Formats: sequence, C-alpha cells, structure tokens
Amino acid sequence: MRPLPALFLILYFEVMLECCTVFAQSNSEDLRSYLSLAQEITRTALSEGQAYSMLSELTQNVGSRLSGSPEAAAAVEWGRQTMIKYGLDDVHLQEVMVPRWVRGPVEEAAVINSVTVGTRPLTVCALGGSVGTSELGVVGEVLEVQNFDQVQALGSQARGKILFYNRPLDPRRLNTFAAYGGAVNQRSRGAIEAAKVEAAAVLVRSMTTRLDDAPHTGGMHYDSKVPKIPAAAISTVDANFLSQLIKRDGSVRVRLRLSSETLPDVPSANVIGEITGFERPDEIIVLGGHLDSWDKGQGAHDDGAGCVQSIEALRLLKSLGLKPRRTIRAVLFMNEENGQRGAKAYAEDADKNGSRHIAAIESDRGGFTPKGFTVKADSQIVAEIAQWAYLFEPMLADDIRPGHGGVDINPLWEKFGTPAIGLLVESHRYFDYHHSDNDTLDKVNERELELGAAAMAILAYVLATEGIQGQ
Amino acid sequence: MRPLPALFLILYFEVMLECCTVFAQSNSEDLRSYLSLAQEITRTALSEGQAYSMLSELTQNVGSRLSGSPEAAAAVEWGRQTMIKYGLDDVHLQEVMVPRWVRGPVEEAAVINSVTVGTRPLTVCALGGSVGTSELGVVGEVLEVQNFDQVQALGSQARGKILFYNRPLDPRRLNTFAAYGGAVNQRSRGAIEAAKVEAAAVLVRSMTTRLDDAPHTGGMHYDSKVPKIPAAAISTVDANFLSQLIKRDGSVRVRLRLSSETLPDVPSANVIGEITGFERPDEIIVLGGHLDSWDKGQGAHDDGAGCVQSIEALRLLKSLGLKPRRTIRAVLFMNEENGQRGAKAYAEDADKNGSRHIAAIESDRGGFTPKGFTVKADSQIVAEIAQWAYLFEPMLADDIRPGHGGVDINPLWEKFGTPAIGLLVESHRYFDYHHSDNDTLDKVNERELELGAAAMAILAYVLATEGIQGQ
Repeated sequence: MRPLPALFLILYFEVMLECCTVFAQSNSEDLRSYLSLAQEITRTALSEGQAYSMLSELTQNVGSRLSGSPEAAAAVEWGRQTMIKYGLDDVHLQEVMVPRWVRGPVEEAAVINSVTVGTRPLTVCALGGSVGTSELGVVGEVLEVQNFDQVQALGSQARGKILFYNRPLDPRRLNTFAAYGGAVNQRSRGAIEAAKVEAAAVLVRSMTTRLDDAPHTGGMHYDSKVPKIPAAAISTVDANFLSQLIKRDGSVRVRLRLSSETLPDVPSANVIGEITGFERPDEIIVLGGHLDSWDKGQGAHDDGAGCVQSIEALRLLKSLGLKPRRTIRAVLFMNEENGQRGAKAYAEDADKNGSRHIAAIESDRGGFTPKGFTVKADSQIVAEIAQWAYLFEPMLADDIRPGHGGVDINPLWEKFGTPAIGLLVESHRYFDYHHSDNDTLDKVNERELELGAAAMAILAYVLATEGIQGQ
Repeated sequence: MRPLPALFLILYFEVMLECCTVFAQSNSEDLRSYLSLAQEITRTALSEGQAYSMLSELTQNVGSRLSGSPEAAAAVEWGRQTMIKYGLDDVHLQEVMVPRWVRGPVEEAAVINSVTVGTRPLTVCALGGSVGTSELGVVGEVLEVQNFDQVQALGSQARGKILFYNRPLDPRRLNTFAAYGGAVNQRSRGAIEAAKVEAAAVLVRSMTTRLDDAPHTGGMHYDSKVPKIPAAAISTVDANFLSQLIKRDGSVRVRLRLSSETLPDVPSANVIGEITGFERPDEIIVLGGHLDSWDKGQGAHDDGAGCVQSIEALRLLKSLGLKPRRTIRAVLFMNEENGQRGAKAYAEDADKNGSRHIAAIESDRGGFTPKGFTVKADSQIVAEIAQWAYLFEPMLADDIRPGHGGVDINPLWEKFGTPAIGLLVESHRYFDYHHSDNDTLDKVNERELELGAAAMAILAYVLATEGIQGQ
C-alpha cells in the first residue's frame, strides 16, 4: 500500500481532533463537561483575573468620560489598546457621531433665601442635557411636588416658580432598579411637565436609595412643544432639608445658576474586538457594556465594570485555550447615557453587513455579585437559555428569567429579534454610587467583578457552541 | 337567664381571640399568611428600619470594643439602654469574667534590614493574645514558610529565626469563609508550631482575600508545652514585598517590637432582652451576635452588625404588633473573639435555670445581603427548618442547608442539642474588612443590614409560633 503523504495525515488528524472537540462540546447530554468548564473559567477568573486591573487603568488613568469629551476619546484608545494587548481578533473602531453636552465653566450653584436660615447653598448639579441659566441665574419661589398630577394641578400658580420634585425611590422595593424605575420620570420628563405650566426651572431629588451629600446626575429630555427650562439634581440630604424648610418657613426662594450647554455633535466610536468563531464566524454572540459615563466620579460601576467584564470574558476563554465555534465579540458601546448613538450605529451596521447575531449579553447594572440573567426574548427562547442555569449554580447565579436585556443591545432585539440578555447582579448598593462622585474604583470588589465576567464568559461560550435552537 | 359577669365575658372573648390568633398563625397550611407577614416585616425593615442608626451609634460613639476594655463596658451599657429604649422585656446583664489582653503602650513595629533596601518598616500588628517582646525587640533572619510541614522540616535551622507564614487565602474558593478556614491555622497555631522548632517569633500573612496595607489581627493560641513567642500579622502588600525581598536578597533580617500583654481577667457581661412568649414563655428562641470586637477599626461588620440585627429583629416584630407564642430573646454575647466566655456562661446559666432553648440564630458573617441560613442540627431538623425557605424567596435568601451555626450559640448546641442556625450572607467583601482598620460603618449598606435583620425576625417568629416538631 502506498503511504499517505505526510501533509494529508496531519490535516486528517487535525480535522479529526477538531471534530472530536466539537462533538465533546456540542453534546448537550454531556452536562458534566460544561460544568467542569464553567468551574475552570470561574476559578481562573478568581485567581488570575485581569478585570480589576483593567478597571483600575480606566478609572485612574482616564476617569469619567462623558460622550464627546477628551476623556471619552482617551477611553476609546484605552479600549482599543487593551483589546490588542490581550490578542483579540479584528480589533477596530466603529465611528459614530455623538452629542456633546458640557457642564460649562461656571460653578453650578443653588442658593436658598428664606426667613429662618437667610442664604445657604444647596448641593446641586445640572442634569445631563439641561440648558444653562442666565449669568444671574433663575430666581423663584420653590414649590415641592411629588408627581406630574400635582404639577398639572398647580396650573398658573407654577408660573415663574422653581418646581422641586421630591418623590423618593421607594425603599420597600427589594429590587432597587424597580425603585429607580418608579421615580426616574421626575428626572427624565420633569422639565417638560414643569414647562407646560410655565415654571422657570426644576430641582429633582437625586435618584438614590441613600441619604448622601452628592447630587446624582442623569439624562433628561426636552420636548419641542414647550420651552427648555434648566434642570438640576439636588442631593437627598439637601432635598430633605429643603422640604422641611418649606414646611417651616412657608415660602423659600432659590437662585439657581447653571452654565451647561449642548455643543455640536463630535465624532467618537464603539470599540470592537472578538474571538472569531472557528466554524461559523459570521454568527455572533455580543458581550457588551458602555464606555461612556457621566462626568461625575469615575464611572466605575456605570459602566466601566461592564466594559472590562466584556473584554475579560474573552481573555478568560483565550487563556484557557477555548475556541468558540461561533464568534464571540466584545463591544464597548459609546454614548449610552445621553443618546445611545453607539448602540443604534452598531445595529444599523449589522443590518448593512447582513451579519447574524445569535445573542447579545450586556452588563450594565454595576460590577456586583452576579445573580443570573434577565432575558428579553420569546418565552420559549428564555426557557432554552434557562436550561443552562445549572452552570451558574455553584456561584449562586442561576436565576435566569424574562426581563430587560440592556440599553445598548436593545436595538439588536428591536431590529433582528436577537435575544437580549442582561447580567443580573446584587442591586442594593448600585444607586448609592450611580451617576455621582461616589462611583469610584474603591466601591468595586474584585471578586464580585470577576465573577460577573466569568458568568458572561460561560454563557457566551455555551451559546457560541450550542447556538439557540428556537431561532 | 342570669347575666354573665362582665369580667368573665371579657376574659372569655380575650381567650377566644387569642385562640383564633394562635390558630391562624399555627396552621402551617396557611402558607399565604406567613408569606404576607414575611413581606410586611421586610418592607417595614427597608422603609423604617433602625439597624443602621443603631450601628451608627455603636461604631461612632463607642468604636472598637475589645473584651475587658473601657469601650467594651461602654458597649454593654449602650446595648442595655438600646434594648430598654425599644421596650424589650426583662432587659438585664449576665455577668461574666473576661480575658484582658492589651496591645500595650509602645507602637508596634517591624523593621527590615537587608542588603538592597537597607532599613524599612513593615506594616504589622500583634495578633490577639500574643506576648510582647523585650524593649529592644526580637531580631532574627526571616524564613518564609507555607505550612506546618515546612516548619517541621526546618528543624534546627529555625532556631532563633523569625518564621514568616505566607500561605494566602485560596482565591479560587467561591465561599471566602472556606478560603479563610484553609489558611487560618497559620494565625491560630503558627506560634505553637514555630516554638516547637525554637523560632524566636512569627509573622503571619493577614487573613484577607485582598491586597491591602492594613494588618488584620485575630486570635492566636499558645500551648503550655512550648515557650510563648511573639506573633504579629503583616499586611498582604508587605507580605508580598517581604517574600520578594527574601527571594532577591537571600537573607533578610527583621526587628520586631511588640508591647502586648495579658492582664488579669475583668468583669464584663452579656446583654439580654426579649419579647416574652405569651403562651410558652419558658421556651426560647435566641437571636444573637457578639458585642466585643478586636481593637482595630470599629467592629462594624464583625460583629456590630449581628448585635444591631438581633435587637432590630425584635423591634420589627414589636412595631408590627406581632406577639410570639414562645419567647424570642436577643443576646449580645461578650468575648467571642478571644475566649467565648459569654457564650459559655450563657449556656451554663441556661443549664442551671432549666430553660428550654428551641433554637438559636446567630449573625456573625457581616451585615451583607442575606442568602439563607446554615443549620447545625440533625438532618431531619434541618429539613424541617428548610420547609420555611419559601418565606425567604422574595429576598433571594432561601438557601437553607446544613452548616455552621455560630461560635456564640455553639455551646447551646453542644449542651442541649439546640439547633444552631447561622445567617448566611454574601461573603465576597467580608475578609476585606475583617479584624482590621477597614471594618468601619461606611462599609455597611443599610439595605443589606436591614434585610438580614428581617430574615432573622421572620425565622424567629415562625419558629416561636410553630416550634420544631423533631425535637
């Protein structure tokens, strides 16, 4: 018998090996091997993780990074270089124009004038997107309200006044995101509703479950049908003080001075890198977080955590030599906080390219202990994803249920029906830090952060290997 | 018909009402009412809780409170007054003699002397119970070891040397208490094993999962068969530095100076208060934590949290007008850290009084998000307690399983077979703070702390109403 050429033999064995590997990985009866793999990923994350050191670089060397700022540009470059450093495939920027809102050169100030305390400053900051005031500021009597019905009921009494939205996050809600959801319309739409009754400005109680001295900023909107009036967050400590003062003194006047403004859009980018699938490279599982933050604190939990976890998940798979059948891609989305331009651009480009997105997983609830995943998808697909819950039992993160996916991956769901999966984490501390000077690296625990990255890596790898049948 | 006397009627109706109440509470088929009750307790804790303000008083006004110290005496008085303030029944002190170990008047110091760095201080502190050194300190070459086998293998080479135990907590363990358990014998028995080979002193890598600059103290023991040698904790940052220096320079000498000593025992006390059971007052469910702490930080998580949660659990039940059939008793145990004298005295007194302890629940794993309970009891009793897991599902604290109860309630288990139940909490951050200057109020989240108190209140109330059948 004529000997086979050596090259053929090598190729033959490589193909056989590949097939065996694929078989071992794709046999969903083989629960133990996935469970071992999950454990290996977790142990590697806990013992040799890099997420915390990445987050340290981003928060200490770049800091906060509002869309369109020089810091946001530095963050894009940091993301690109970090992905290259860890050897990701096809690292590139996806350009996108973003809004450029700035807090302005003058120190923000709100000063009380009332009978019993005379003048006293309040701790405030402009809400993101707010117009500024004149140089002298807006001066008016403060009227406290809890909701939009009360605003409407004020009618002409509100004219020229400063409306003070003071409905707290409901502390009784076990999930702080639910409490936030029940209060945040004061921040997002408060200026619109106040402008309808011709108020001069709004102060909004900070969206936090805690009593603290920090104003918590965040996005707010205007409506072209009514005038744009200035809007500022006030710390919860000062909100309580102001409320009590109004009760005591009857009438309290405030002078509010903001120099914020919206400049023309500027170019920025999503940062993208991946491990290209060895068998179906054009089928993609996205892992994402958002790279921009507000201009307070360091954007450590919101959402530096999600960015470094997305990169870390790929780094963990690579370091263990795990090659996914489908592509797993990390996307650091730009401009989640005030425009979602990065998210929209990513989905639009995917549409143009005809690329197929199997699933998208976002981490944007802070770098806390993972509890599971919330899935935006048809209930049958939720059930299919939930079959993998046992892989997350050892880390007590096996709660997989229907729910919100993520702001940045939502356009993929809207456009293609891509299952949008949100990493679910412990929520009690998140709003202590959110959108404020409190959101700094020291509030992040390395183990909690790493476990989130491990959870993302495990789910991404399983979905990249098994796919989703229901699609 | 002769009318019944008014007093009889009143008594009759009171008894009827009582019976109905008992029936409604004791019918274990009526799952929904317990679930409603659990929800009400939880919501009250989250919206009107006092645990955090209690902890604020204890940590800010008293601070750390090592057994036998003036601060520990102040803590006892604070506990007594707080129980009285909240209207607990039968508030009293249970006197107990405790050890009095002091760090001493001289600043603790360890100074390196090596070829490449010359002299440089190390961040150290005496381990609790350590003898001091002479005024000049102990000077010796440092030998790094990972375990007792290596110490034994050193044999006569160890004579006059300073042994440096540097085995870290295994970061791969998901449960940090398991990681701690795998490393803590270096601290607790390291001086004994080193003395056997005639070492002059020991340095022990701090028992923390984190890299930090704080030495973490903790208990250590001597053995009457070998000399007592000085023992100090070294920060993890300096432990890594020292280890690298030894590798580089070959020989590193350290001078260690401690002025710690053990003084004669002094009187102290457990603090006790309760809601006396309306039907079976002599059957008791204990809720406990320990009032003493080490002399570093403020003992906020360890174990101020457990103390305020025990009081808070009773306060919550009272504020909702819930009267337990059996007695629920809060015990703030003294001297958990270095002697467990309070725990022993409590069990001995219970033996003398012939009081019947149905169950004991301790919180001593920090004031973090509750996950469930670990139960030290016969497996049938564990299963019986686990039937209540559904009450803790809404707060995701339904993991009830066999395990450690608590150091302070263990004598009840040993003496009477009382089921000893430990509150199980998120563990990732605990050893960041444990026994160090890091253990301060700002590391405690109010919501997490309150949920632990609510979990204890719910379980205590159900056990006080239903009892434990398997006993």
